[in-house]
Amino acid sequence: MITKPTLLLDSDKCRKNMGRMAAKAAAKGLSFRPHFKTHQSLEIGRWYREFGVTKITVSSLSMAGYFSGEWNDITVAFPVNILEIETINELAWKITLNIQLENFESAAFLSENLRAGVGCFIKIDVGTHRTGADPKDTKNIEAVMDVIDSSDHMRFRGFLAHSGHTYRCTSKNEVIEIHEKTRGIMLELKQKYKNRYPDLILSVGDTPSCSLAENFEGLDEIRPGNFVFYDLTQENIGSNQIEDIAVAMACPLVAKHPERLELVIYGGGVHFSKDGLKTGSEGLIYGKVAEQHGLKWGSLVPGMVLKGLSQEHGIVKVPCHLFDKYKLGDLLYILPVHSCLTADLMKSFYTTNGELITIPRLV
Amino acid sequence: MITKPTLLLDSDKCRKNMGRMAAKAAAKGLSFRPHFKTHQSLEIGRWYREFGVTKITVSSLSMAGYFSGEWNDITVAFPVNILEIETINELAWKITLNIQLENFESAAFLSENLRAGVGCFIKIDVGTHRTGADPKDTKNIEAVMDVIDSSDHMRFRGFLAHSGHTYRCTSKNEVIEIHEKTRGIMLELKQKYKNRYPDLILSVGDTPSCSLAENFEGLDEIRPGNFVFYDLTQENIGSNQIEDIAVAMACPLVAKHPERLELVIYGGGVHFSKDGLKTGSEGLIYGKVAEQHGLKWGSLVPGMVLKGLSQEHGIVKVPCHLFDKYKLGDLLYILPVHSCLTADLMKSFYTTNGELITIPRLV
Repeated sequence: MITKPTLLLDSDKCRKNMGRMAAKAAAKGLSFRPHFKTHQSLEIGRWYREFGVTKITVSSLSMAGYFSGEWNDITVAFPVNILEIETINELAWKITLNIQLENFESAAFLSENLRAGVGCFIKIDVGTHRTGADPKDTKNIEAVMDVIDSSDHMRFRGFLAHSGHTYRCTSKNEVIEIHEKTRGIMLELKQKYKNRYPDLILSVGDTPSCSLAENFEGLDEIRPGNFVFYDLTQENIGSNQIEDIAVAMACPLVAKHPERLELVIYGGGVHFSKDGLKTGSEGLIYGKVAEQHGLKWGSLVPGMVLKGLSQEHGIVKVPCHLFDKYKLGDLLYILPVHSCLTADLMKSFYTTNGELITIPRLV
Repeated sequence: MITKPTLLLDSDKCRKNMGRMAAKAAAKGLSFRPHFKTHQSLEIGRWYREFGVTKITVSSLSMAGYFSGEWNDITVAFPVNILEIETINELAWKITLNIQLENFESAAFLSENLRAGVGCFIKIDVGTHRTGADPKDTKNIEAVMDVIDSSDHMRFRGFLAHSGHTYRCTSKNEVIEIHEKTRGIMLELKQKYKNRYPDLILSVGDTPSCSLAENFEGLDEIRPGNFVFYDLTQENIGSNQIEDIAVAMACPLVAKHPERLELVIYGGGVHFSKDGLKTGSEGLIYGKVAEQHGLKWGSLVPGMVLKGLSQEHGIVKVPCHLFDKYKLGDLLYILPVHSCLTADLMKSFYTTNGELITIPRLV
């Protein structure tokens, strides 16, 4: 019996999301290296095997260490942290490890300190302006390549991009425009360096582009992660339908305020995270309530949104005609705004088959 | 050696914050029942004993269960979750447990289902409009009192308020105004019901009021929590000085972008939380960089702020003249916007004495 905030996972929807993306990658001739930072679970990771997945992406060396027990080809899509050189060396001995470089300094440090072989991707800034080398700064890119080529332990694998700015889009057309721009930048790099590196890989990765784009010509690998669960942010972009969202938080109703048409739930920032979503009709929200069917859920309940969060409290707005339907002790099923952060906070999933899946805190 | 995002705790500053608040409570003749949701640690909780603390506040029954191993007088300052009646009964047998009521339905449920004695506070909405009974709705308040009085297992303890709207203040005067309004509402209730309950307690609790107000006449108990660490949000309100902040996140520098005057750190939303702070001069920020002194820290570095967060990445703005000072592999010490959520995410503290304090995930 659920008595506290509990993250429900619809394993059918989750597997369907995996299967759809795997099929798309296969149809486009792309290598599929899903990002595991969203689910962070060995168990859920195993489901990917059903769809032929053999290599994965993670966002920290801690996560790489955790998954290295079951996966032997891992790309860490995060700027290399030179302070963790010991971990890099340990993992590089154990598995096929790919790391991400973007400047001469880190490359030079690795060249001096690596004791086992790593694959090196150069991260390209395709417009998100978070990390990555400027694609026009070929002097920098080639300086990194020269270090890689002169090292016994480093091998150039290709260029890696993450069009994170698609997360700010609100339509398919905007996403496609960014994806095409990314593709253009990446193809130009391949063209420029294909003689030097005939096997170089172009790897891209955001969930909006991988969900919405059709043209992947010239690209080699995709690394989406969030699509495994999807969420309201992705639905707002257009990446998925509401029915594709594979996680929902079950939250006990603990107080009712008819004068404000508000329900207070046990479920706050320590469960959902404080990531909000700006919507046209309902302003800033933190979740939407779905109809409850046992441990599964159905359509959204129109007008029922999670409007406020403090540490343990959530405030749900409810239309007047539905107010009396909800009683103290009821569970509300709430679709999250950002499933990655919600899963990271909850560290466990209760599947619609009644199975409990826990994930460790990766420190 | 620190190689990954690590939450540093200056135990001297933390004890100083505890001592200052305990002394203030004593000087004002107030009972001091600190909120433990900020630190969530048995070890840090023990430090309070040095200042004579014998009773505590928590925000969930899970937390009450965790602390019940060492504390035998606990108030759960959260609307009672009737689904957890088994836990309530277990705890009520073991310790002095106080719960929070605000409506007839929960009171009636407890009256029928309690098998051990609990102290009952009626939560009063003093203007935050999150939870609590309307102080003017004496019909509701008295209906709850009647249930309590007719139950063998329930005892009325008093009124409990949380002026959470002080968190939206930006000056001491605004905080004092809210505090005085809260005091007025609470004193009126005491006046009204003191014949029925000669021992009734008025309990208030937010960190801004407890830090800034001087007039607590008529009130009986304070329950602040955040002050144990403080943070940039409280500093912005005026509750504390920068030098009172007792926690800082040490984050490895992983990339530099001179063209944008940005440093990329390993430290993101899964470490800091996504709670931001709107500042006048720097817009929305997620932290500020402090000078590093071994495992301690000093003043803020002017102009160095954490401007962006994704799951594991943080983006730090740095003034031009300081840019070259920072190298890959350096640690940046960052004061957090919201220490409660940051501590909850990190689940461990590395003290300035080199001790590691971990806290469990309370599910």
